[in-house]
This record gives sequence, structure tokens and C-alpha cells, in this order.
Amino acid sequence: MKQVEPTSMASIPMQHVGPLKLTGPLGDFEVLVPLATYESPLWPSVRRGARVTARAGGIHVTVQGDGMTRSVLIVAPDAAGAFALLQFVEQQRPELERAAADTSRFARLQDVHGEAVGHLVWLRFEFATGDASGHNMATRASEALLNWILEQRSECSYGSISGNYCCDKKVSAVNGILGRGKRVVAEARIPRELVERYLHTTPEKIVELNYRKNWMGSVLAGGVRSANAHFANMLLGFYLATGQDAANVVEGSQGFTLAEVDQGGGLLFSVTLPNLIMGSVGSGKGLPFVEENLRALGCKDERAAGENARRLAGICAATVLCGELSLLAAQTNPGELMAAHLRLERAAD
Amino acid sequence: MKQVEPTSMASIPMQHVGPLKLTGPLGDFEVLVPLATYESPLWPSVRRGARVTARAGGIHVTVQGDGMTRSVLIVAPDAAGAFALLQFVEQQRPELERAAADTSRFARLQDVHGEAVGHLVWLRFEFATGDASGHNMATRASEALLNWILEQRSECSYGSISGNYCCDKKVSAVNGILGRGKRVVAEARIPRELVERYLHTTPEKIVELNYRKNWMGSVLAGGVRSANAHFANMLLGFYLATGQDAANVVEGSQGFTLAEVDQGGGLLFSVTLPNLIMGSVGSGKGLPFVEENLRALGCKDERAAGENARRLAGICAATVLCGELSLLAAQTNPGELMAAHLRLERAAD
Amino acid sequence: MKQVEPTSMASIPMQHVGPLKLTGPLGDFEVLVPLATYESPLWPSVRRGARVTARAGGIHVTVQGDGMTRSVLIVAPDAAGAFALLQFVEQQRPELERAAADTSRFARLQDVHGEAVGHLVWLRFEFATGDASGHNMATRASEALLNWILEQRSECSYGSISGNYCCDKKVSAVNGILGRGKRVVAEARIPRELVERYLHTTPEKIVELNYRKNWMGSVLAGGVRSANAHFANMLLGFYLATGQDAANVVEGSQGFTLAEVDQGGGLLFSVTLPNLIMGSVGSGKGLPFVEENLRALGCKDERAAGENARRLAGICAATVLCGELSLLAAQTNPGELMAAHLRLERAAD
Amino acid sequence: MKQVEPTSMASIPMQHVGPLKLTGPLGDFEVLVPLATYESPLWPSVRRGARVTARAGGIHVTVQGDGMTRSVLIVAPDAAGAFALLQFVEQQRPELERAAADTSRFARLQDVHGEAVGHLVWLRFEFATGDASGHNMATRASEALLNWILEQRSECSYGSISGNYCCDKKVSAVNGILGRGKRVVAEARIPRELVERYLHTTPEKIVELNYRKNWMGSVLAGGVRSANAHFANMLLGFYLATGQDAANVVEGSQGFTLAEVDQGGGLLFSVTLPNLIMGSVGSGKGLPFVEENLRALGCKDERAAGENARRLAGICAATVLCGELSLLAAQTNPGELMAAHLRLERAAD
Repeated sequence: MKQVEPTSMASIPMQHVGPLKLTGPLGDFEVLVPLATYESPLWPSVRRGARVTARAGGIHVTVQGDGMTRSVLIVAPDAAGAFALLQFVEQQRPELERAAADTSRFARLQDVHGEAVGHLVWLRFEFATGDASGHNMATRASEALLNWILEQRSECSYGSISGNYCCDKKVSAVNGILGRGKRVVAEARIPRELVERYLHTTPEKIVELNYRKNWMGSVLAGGVRSANAHFANMLLGFYLATGQDAANVVEGSQGFTLAEVDQGGGLLFSVTLPNLIMGSVGSGKGLPFVEENLRALGCKDERAAGENARRLAGICAATVLCGELSLLAAQTNPGELMAAHLRLERAAD
Repeated sequence: MKQVEPTSMASIPMQHVGPLKLTGPLGDFEVLVPLATYESPLWPSVRRGARVTARAGGIHVTVQGDGMTRSVLIVAPDAAGAFALLQFVEQQRPELERAAADTSRFARLQDVHGEAVGHLVWLRFEFATGDASGHNMATRASEALLNWILEQRSECSYGSISGNYCCDKKVSAVNGILGRGKRVVAEARIPRELVERYLHTTPEKIVELNYRKNWMGSVLAGGVRSANAHFANMLLGFYLATGQDAANVVEGSQGFTLAEVDQGGGLLFSVTLPNLIMGSVGSGKGLPFVEENLRALGCKDERAAGENARRLAGICAATVLCGELSLLAAQTNPGELMAAHLRLERAAD
Repeated sequence: MKQVEPTSMASIPMQHVGPLKLTGPLGDFEVLVPLATYESPLWPSVRRGARVTARAGGIHVTVQGDGMTRSVLIVAPDAAGAFALLQFVEQQRPELERAAADTSRFARLQDVHGEAVGHLVWLRFEFATGDASGHNMATRASEALLNWILEQRSECSYGSISGNYCCDKKVSAVNGILGRGKRVVAEARIPRELVERYLHTTPEKIVELNYRKNWMGSVLAGGVRSANAHFANMLLGFYLATGQDAANVVEGSQGFTLAEVDQGGGLLFSVTLPNLIMGSVGSGKGLPFVEENLRALGCKDERAAGENARRLAGICAATVLCGELSLLAAQTNPGELMAAHLRLERAAD
Repeated sequence: MKQVEPTSMASIPMQHVGPLKLTGPLGDFEVLVPLATYESPLWPSVRRGARVTARAGGIHVTVQGDGMTRSVLIVAPDAAGAFALLQFVEQQRPELERAAADTSRFARLQDVHGEAVGHLVWLRFEFATGDASGHNMATRASEALLNWILEQRSECSYGSISGNYCCDKKVSAVNGILGRGKRVVAEARIPRELVERYLHTTPEKIVELNYRKNWMGSVLAGGVRSANAHFANMLLGFYLATGQDAANVVEGSQGFTLAEVDQGGGLLFSVTLPNLIMGSVGSGKGLPFVEENLRALGCKDERAAGENARRLAGICAATVLCGELSLLAAQTNPGELMAAHLRLERAAD
């Protein structure tokens, strides 16, 4: 169909960076990470983080949550009707689960969060969606739930299939608090001597900068549920290289960097990504270079539903850690950031 | 230099959509807009918006502001010293302007915003940066200003070259309130009969949905300075196709959709993008397909410094309007969104 | 004990305003509402709202949620330990319920929300607290839960009895999304002729102003989960008059005003207060004037635990509706707000 | 006039706590601070902070900004008209200053911040208002400016005298970024031995708790431009005792606590209050106990316009510091907070 066939290709520069060394529930393994971006200094930055963390024993990754959301909007006749609807939805949970399961082999209703403002009701559904990021699966299931509810409650009417309480590709607090996509934490413990040798700084300097810049600075800027230096850069590169919808970098950018000096004087460094939208199947995944990248990352293997996507999310979070650590280290040293950019970009000419 | 040479290319599907019809201070012209994305339903969506707005006389675009920012962090010995520093910076404005101008042919200091928290001081510099989006130009100029200030105020010390009050690729309120990149408004006035014929809905339905979904829903989700349906989708496609750093979709996504029924019963529809990061020269712009796209958009012409980039930003905002209008129209009709996605994506197989 | 005995009294001007007419699950009744404030124009403003809503058949009030929260902060040795702690807490829910119930006759654990950032864990406990607002009851129960958890998980250590994820007397998104205190909606349906006669405006004007000012203006200002004109004014007056901790006006101010023209051309107007902290027993309630006010409001009657406090919250929300409606009506008319203030305050001299 | 005469008085318990020792541009002096509240543990808490800071040499206070704001909303015919209006307002600054100055002996226009969303324009005016907090003075001046603008621009029409971009008694980011009321920083440097003796903790523990609880916890909660433990408690007590409109505790609560270990091993502790609404004249200030309190604080002396109000704001910020320091110290020690509350409140029975 002509409407949705591409007429050409945008060729984004790509490198495979690493190896990154991962540990934890996803397994212990090394991996080269593909990153597609116009900002070529990203590659040496992630590479530096990969090197120091590998020397330090690797990056421990845990996937702490997994579910795709969609919110629908329903119009009740008045506030009393809205409250009655919320109570009805709570009571009919088993029916809702059945209706959702009927729409797909993978979609499973995991949670319903409802909120009324006057006579308007938002219902935020969360689904398990297997290895897909699940945008379409969640929309299809939500549409079924919405239709079923409207059939049962004839006094209510359609508001919207998406009420922005989802919240897709937009800033929110709800995605972090209630979860959307994968919730992933990546952490490395790096001895002081490695920090000094590879990052040319000290644990104390990184800790101080992370506090003042990422937490204080982000609060001053009027950010919301976000404290990091540049998650978005790594996410963009990883998303493009693995066929993800890169507009989801918006919510992905809302995450947290934590740095502390541990008891041995080393650096305990972690990134927490509360809403990483990530799939190993679905739109974009059929392009040859994407498929090759996913295969090389071990995310096209035979695994239980969802496990390939979670592995991918774990590798992504580890990549974010590498880039974040490297940039923070650079910014502890006056002049280093600019010098590196100038050197690398001149080189790129 | 090996570190920053790509080893392969990520080929993102692209279409040239339109023509979009623009009017206003940037001139009256028609243009085909390149959009690179894995989400192919974006193309027919923007195309539909382009068609109806062209029939309605076009999209009026105004660029209301233009400047790139970078914030530095300085450590004073105490709160009194921090306040003294803020006062010093205010008095030395001419010196700062000179120091900034020395760093580049284009960089010009336009504004300084300072804020102290206890003994820590954030200075947010805003620069004109010609046709470049200006990330590097602003960093280089900020580094010069930071060094100059630290020389004058020996009691103060380096905190960070970037204090997250900038605020690059992260959610914030400051970018919208004080400006970052281009501030652009695109608006179309669409007669009722065109709304009905091309969008299969009514002005009243779009107005109501925009209020409930984009404004109310976004507030409920805990968003900050943002009220739209999916700016991020159009921004991503446009950014990738024109060589922009697409991680800036994060702040770009924070904008506003306004819909009202005008006195003649038609639809007055606008999108406001308070912080659109956009350049027609710089990283990524030298790739052949990017250069070709920029040239076709008329953004490689001989113009006063900054005018090509502002034209590009204007076209981008008009593109955002088309996609936003089309999706909202679809969501006023129960079932249309999902049906369209299914139809288009099956077609894409 | 000298430390906490007052040495004098601050005498705040008070009026009993109304009668307000309430309907709904709390019963159908009329009530005079005490408001203590330095801002005397508040009284005629609420009075005007009370009059028009009473003529219209009253204000329908529903209490949609009730629970007091406290978050504790626990330090795990690493991110893996943090995740293990979250899983442990989920499994031990019955034990936690028992431990909480042991601390008080009324405290009952209703919900636990956990979130890890790296190796740090926040646990947000929600309790039923009977007729008390429950600050102290929740703290005492949380302390018991915290101690019990730390005994079981010796690898973890105390972070804080309050981790600001509660979130008491501070701006947040979490209080609205997950609930804190009472969630109350008050709604009135006012025929067009009453709007015109008593409020000197039209439903359309109020609807338009509410959209532009309360929703759009608050978003532009960088607010979070809040869209109203002046909830804080009514809350302060009501809190002081009924012995509430008025510092909770901070989170109370984060609520929503919704106005629509209904099918009959009248005004459907509601206020939604997602986190109203309110008690009919506890600190402040023993003062003679407070006790008298609570008694006159029917909130010292024999009722099931929690019912008196919920009735009080319902009356409070109705009061908020009256003041909100009156101010919005005034602001639809150029000049009226200032004229009213000047007239009333001159009169007060 | 009956409408605005109180019919009775709400008597709020009050204590005069201190002495607090202040230093800095406002002068070096000691002062007893009146605090009216139902939460009696506030008094010993502030008293403890006052004692340790006095021993440490006092609290250094700087008032860094001063101005009251009001935003008006204007409706232009389209986006082009909105931009034209913004440009007009910028050009007519001298006329606007004249029109504002005509409305009052004290009101002086200090700043205009404009923002358009589509065809709607918000103008946020900032005024000097002498010793008054300035709510009414700013409204009166804004009304004059609004009328003058609407006369000049006949294509535009009245939207609202208050467009919520002000932002009065509501959560926002704009008040902190652009300022509203007084911006005040209070700071104390406390030797380690005093921290240990009077606060039973260490500088390190306070620093760590402040980071994790006030900055991280507030970010997790989805707060906006706020990082403190309980500013609202001290503000409420101080506001009620000095005749302030205590609903302004909402924006006052949005401030920052900073704690660092200084080079000598002591504690450098500050509170930053970016939008403290405070006056020494105006509504509420004529009540006998208020007048007495203001006089005792030295805020009824003969001083240049605005100096009494700024002194009052400085004392308020120092009070906030005392209470904040004391609570944080308590929360570093497991069990202390609850034990103190129980002991003090039992004593209060």
C-alpha cells in the first residue's frame, strides 16, 4: 500500500560499541552494543564507560517491572455516575481480564488505575505484552475494554481511546510512579583506582557533581521525576539501532542517576530507568540491520514470552550507565568536555 | 579518527509528505516534508493534515524567539558570596558579551539568568547561534564566560560546565518559560465543511477532545508545561530526516495544542512549540540525504544568518500541526484510530 | 510542660457562612460553614456561591477515597538488595498488616507502594486512621513497620522515618495519583437563569474562563496536577476554623475545577480534591471554638469510625466549590474583581 | 459593612520562640519569633534550631529579590495578532510603567513577561509594592495596564484579570524561576561539636539525609522546584502570627534546603525561599496582636519603603532554617522523631 511504503531511507551513522559486561538475573555475558546517531562523540563516551565497568567486574542489571499502558477516557452523566463507574470497574476485574485476553495471544491485563475529575473518568490499563513494546496490543485491548464497559454502562459515553494519562511519548509523573514499559536498574561498583585511571577523576567528584547537577540542577530547571545528565542520548542511539519507536525517548529520559562513595572508597554508581519502552518484535524489527542487531544482542533466541525484550531492556540500561558515567566524569574536569568534543568532531570531518 | 567514524548505517524508512502550504512572515510557499520513522502510519496522518490545511488556505507560522542556552554551575564560599557573584555578573554584562563574541563568528550573548541556592550559583546563558542549533557553540562560549568569571572572582570555583538548568534533552519548565531554541507557533483556520469532509468530524468534537485529553489528561498524568497528543512523533520523523539531534525530541515534546470554534463556526487550530532545537548547519547536516532534504526545503539558500534555521523550524511546526490535527480528528471517532493502524500496518507487511 | 504550652493566642477573624445545601451519600442537609481568615472578602464570595447552589438544589458530594500515608527510606547494600527488599515486602503483606494494626486501635494498613532508585528503597504506606487526619498514627505505624522490616533484613539499614515520598505539606504528583487523605468531589448543576441572576454571567463564560485560566494558565505556570483558581483560600479558612493543620493547604491546593455547559444549557460545575487532609479528632480539635464548630457541623455525632471526618471533608469540598464558583464568575466580568475587593475592604476599615 | 465583619474569633495557640540571632545586610540582631499553630511540637523544634545557630554565630540572611506579580490574559484574533501584541507590549514599556505608577503611591512596574499560546496571550507583570505584600496593589495596577492595552489594541479582548500565570497560592515553576514576593536565603555555619552537642547527630548524617530525603524523595514524589522537609510548618506559624495571608504557604513551601560538610568538618546549612509573600502593612496587619508582634520584630520602624517587609521576610527565612535543621537532625536518629512527638504531645494534654 503506497501510503505506508517508504520512498527512500535516512541513513544514520552507526557503531557497535563495547564490549559491555553484564551480570545479574539476565545472565553473565559480554555484548557489543549498536548505537545509531548523528552525535558521534557518543560512541567513545559509551566505550569508555564500557571499558571501566568491565574492568570493575561488570554492570549488574535487574528488570523490576514490565507492562504497557493505555488510558481511555469515559464521560459519565455526573460526578455520582463517575464514581459508580469507578466502583463498577473495580468489581468487574475478572470480566475485564477476560475481555483483554481475547484480543491477543499475549495481552494480559495486569492493572487498572482509575481517576475521576468531576463527571469524567480516566481508566489506565496496564498489560503484559510479551516481547512487543506493545503500543498496538495495548490499544487494541483497551478498545475492547472500553467497548465492553460502554455496553454495560449505557449512561456513560465515549470520551477518547487515549486520554493522555497513558502516557505515551509525553512528559509525566504517572509513568514513573505506576510504571510503563520496563523498569530497569543498572549498577556498577568501581574501585577508586579504576575511577582514577580510566575516568581521570575521583569517586568524590562524581558524587558531588551528580548531586549538584543531576538532582539539584534538574529540580531548579523545573523537571519532573528526572535526575540525569543525558540518558536521552544513549536511548536515541540504542532505539534507532534496534528498531524501537525512538519518540519514546521522551519518557525514557525521565530517570535517575545515583552515585555514592562506598565503604571501600570506591564508586557505587547506578542508573534507574522507570519507564523504558522496548520490544524485540513488532514495527521496525523486520528491517535487515535491525534484525541483525537484535540477533547479535541475543534477543532473537528461544525464550519465554517477554524474556527477549527484557534482555534487550537490560542491555539498554547498561548502555545508558556507560554513557552517563563517562559524561559525568568528563564534567568533573574543567575543560575536558569541550576539548573532547572539539577533538572528536574535528576528527570526524 | 577511528573512534568517531561510523562502521555501518542504520537505514530508517523515509517518505516525503505533502505538500504543506505555509503562510506568514517566512513567506507563502508549498513544500514536501521528509519524515524518517519506523512508525509508518505517521505519513498518511501528516498527509491528511496537510491536505485539509492546504485547502483551508494554509498554515500561518511565526517564529517568536530564537536562542540556544547552556547553564554553568559555580561554587561560592557561602550564600553571601553567591549573592555577590550574581550581582557581579549583572554588572559585567558588557564584558560577558565581549567574551562570548570572541569565541565564534556567530555566538552572541542574548540573556543571562542567574539563580543561587545557598552558596551554589547557576548561570543560564542564552546565545544567538546563527543557523546552527548551537549546542557546541553555546558550550564553547559558556566555557569562555565561566573561565572569565572564575578569573575575576577568585573566591569562587568551578562546579560544572553544564548544571542541568540549560536544559538539554531533559524535561523542564525553564525551557518553555525562558526559551530554548526556536519558539514557534503554527495556526490554521479551517472551515467547518472542510473539517467534516476531510477529517470526518466537527470542530466542536475536536475542541472538546483537545481540552479533555491534551490539557486535562496531561495535567492528571503529572506532566509539566505540555498539552498535546503526539508532537514527539512528528518531531522525531522531521529531526531524523533533516540531520537534527533527535534526542532533543524530549524538550520539543513539551508544547501546546489549542483548538477553538471560531465565530464563523470553523476550527481555529494551533500548535505552540516553545523550545524547538533546530539547525540547518552543523553535525549531521553534511550527510548526502540530509543535505538534499534541507535543499529541497529551501533551507540551504542565501539568507541572513539564522534565517535558514528559522525557516526549517517553521516548516517543522507546520508538520507538527498536520499530524496533531489528524490524530485528534481520528480519536474523536470511536474505533477509527485502531482501524487505521491495523489497516495501514497490515498494508505495510 | 512549658515547651508546648501556648503563651498567648492569635485571634483570627471568623464568620459562619451559608447555609450550604449538601446532597449525596453523606445525606441531604444544610449547614453554616465557619471560615477563619485575614482575607475578609472570602466570606461574601463563599456566601454567594452557597446561595446560588442552594437555589439550584444543592451540592452533591462524594468521598471517593480515604487514607493517610507515610513513606520510609531504607538503604540496601546494592541494587540487587533493593529489589530483593521490594519483593520481600510484597510477600510479607499479612505480617505488615499485623504489625501496623498493633500500633493503634484505628490504624489499618491499606496499601504499600515501593520504589527503588539504585540501592535506596522508598516504601509508601497508606493507612486507614479513623476520624483522625492521622499524621501521628501513620508515623507510629510506619515506625513499627520500618523496625520490623529492618529486623528481618539485616543487610538493610535505616534511611529515614520520612522519605518525602509521603508527601506531607509539600507539592507532589504522588498524592493525587495514589491518594493521601480524603479524595472528594463536589458538584452542582445550576440552571442558566440562576447563573445569570446570581452570578451575573453565563455558563459559557465560566466554562471558557475555567479552561483558559485554570487549566491552560496553570500548565503555563509550570504547575503540577493542579487546575483551579483559589482552592487554597477556602481550605485555609476552613482548616483554621476546624482545628486542622493548615500547612496541609499545600497539597490540598492541588485540585481540579471542571465546568461544562450541560445539555439543558445550564452549568455543570465541580471541584475535585484528590488529597484533602482532614480529621474530626486529634491535635487542635480540643480547643473550645473548634469543638463548637465541629459540633455545629454535625461532625461530633455518634458514627462509625471515620464517618465524622469524611462528613467534614465533604462539607469542606462543598465550601471550596462555593468560593471557586463565585471567583470565576467575578473574573468573567472585567472590573468586577477589583471593584468587589475595594468595596469590601473599604467597608471593613 | 456586615458582609466582611467577623462575627467571632478563631484563637490559635501562639508562642514567642528564640532568641534567633541574625546577621548580614539586614543588620546583626536577636529576636523572639512569634509562631501560631495547632502543632505545638513546632515550638521546641524551632527553639532548638535557634539555640544551636545562635551559639554558632547566627544566621546570615540575604534578600535577593522583591516584587509582586499578577498575570492577565488577553485574547487576540489569531496567532499573528498575539505575536503583534507581545511586540507592542515590549515597545510600550515606558507607557506601561507610567500607567502602573498612576495607580498607587508605591506600585512600580519592574518586569513584564509575555507568552503566547496560539492566539491567547498571558502577560505577567511584576511590581515593587513597598511594605505591602501587594496582592491588591498588583491587581489594581494590572487592571490599569490591561485596560490601557485593550484601548490601544482594539482587535484584542479581555480574557481574565488573573490568568493563573501569576501564580497566587498555587503550585508553579514560574514563581521560583522568575520570582514572586521576596527571594531570601538564610545560612548558618555550625561547628561539628555544636552539631553533636545540640542536635545529637553529625554533619555527615544531616548532609546524607538532606540529599536522599529532601532532594531525591521530593523528585520521586513528583514535586516541582521544591526540596525541603517542612518549610510549610514554619511558614504557617509565622504567617498567622504576623497577619500574612497564610494561603500563600502553598508557594512558600516550594524552596530548597542545602547541607554540606565544610572544609573544617562543620555543617554549612542553608534554606533558600524563592517566593516568600510577606508584608508589614495591609490586610490583617491592623489586628492588635499582629501589630504588637510586628513591632516587637522591629518591622514597624521608620525605614525606606519596603525595608520593613524585607526585614520581616529575612526573619521568617531564619525561622524556617531553625525548624528545618532541627527536624532533619531528629530524623537522622531512628526513633527520635516519634519519641519527641509523643513526649511533647502527651505533655500538651
